Amino acid sequence: MLDKALRMNYLFDFYQSLLTQKQRKYMSLYYLDDLSLGEIAEEFEISRQAVYDNIKRTEVMLEDYEVKLMLLSKFEKRTELVTQMKTAIKVNATPEEIMSLLESLEKLD
Amino acid sequence: MLDKALRMNYLFDFYQSLLTQKQRKYMSLYYLDDLSLGEIAEEFEISRQAVYDNIKRTEVMLEDYEVKLMLLSKFEKRTELVTQMKTAIKVNATPEEIMSLLESLEKLD
Repeated sequence: MLDKALRMNYLFDFYQSLLTQKQRKYMSLYYLDDLSLGEIAEEFEISRQAVYDNIKRTEVMLEDYEVKLMLLSKFEKRTELVTQMKTAIKVNATPEEIMSLLESLEKLD
Repeated sequence: MLDKALRMNYLFDFYQSLLTQKQRKYMSLYYLDDLSLGEIAEEFEISRQAVYDNIKRTEVMLEDYEVKLMLLSKFEKRTELVTQMKTAIKVNATPEEIMSLLESLEKLD
């Protein structure tokens, strides 16, 4: 399992199009720009608690989307296989070995 | 662009986890099992119009998810590149050619 902030960055990357504009804004400021809850609250003139609640709810939504669509999990598996294929190509593996990795990649879809 | 029914089958495959149980049921009977609106209406003891409205709304939702997440579009591009790579491996293309296709595949993520 990835570190929480890194995982939220990835999940946000995959699923941000499914969030509301407000959710995107708070998540982006908190996780990408590393602003504190207090700083975000000040910028939007709302309570720190309201920002916190919104971000927590969004985190739950992102994890829920991941359970349903598994985009991050599939991305990680694809990345691993692509890395293995690159190594196989570099060390002049046999066509059969490269084809076998390619077929594993194909099966992820 | 794919034929409408085939496209709906694909979109349903990618996004069904985001639909309600009722939406999944109607879409599955209509598009996968090829039942008519009348047959679905009879099975669930509701009007043909209600089934039609539900399916039309679901189709719009699926297209909307595709605009946001592009899972079908990315899948099609990945499939094309995988096919090209298989051919390249079979005809003993150079490692550089195979690597180049692999890098194109990687960039889709």
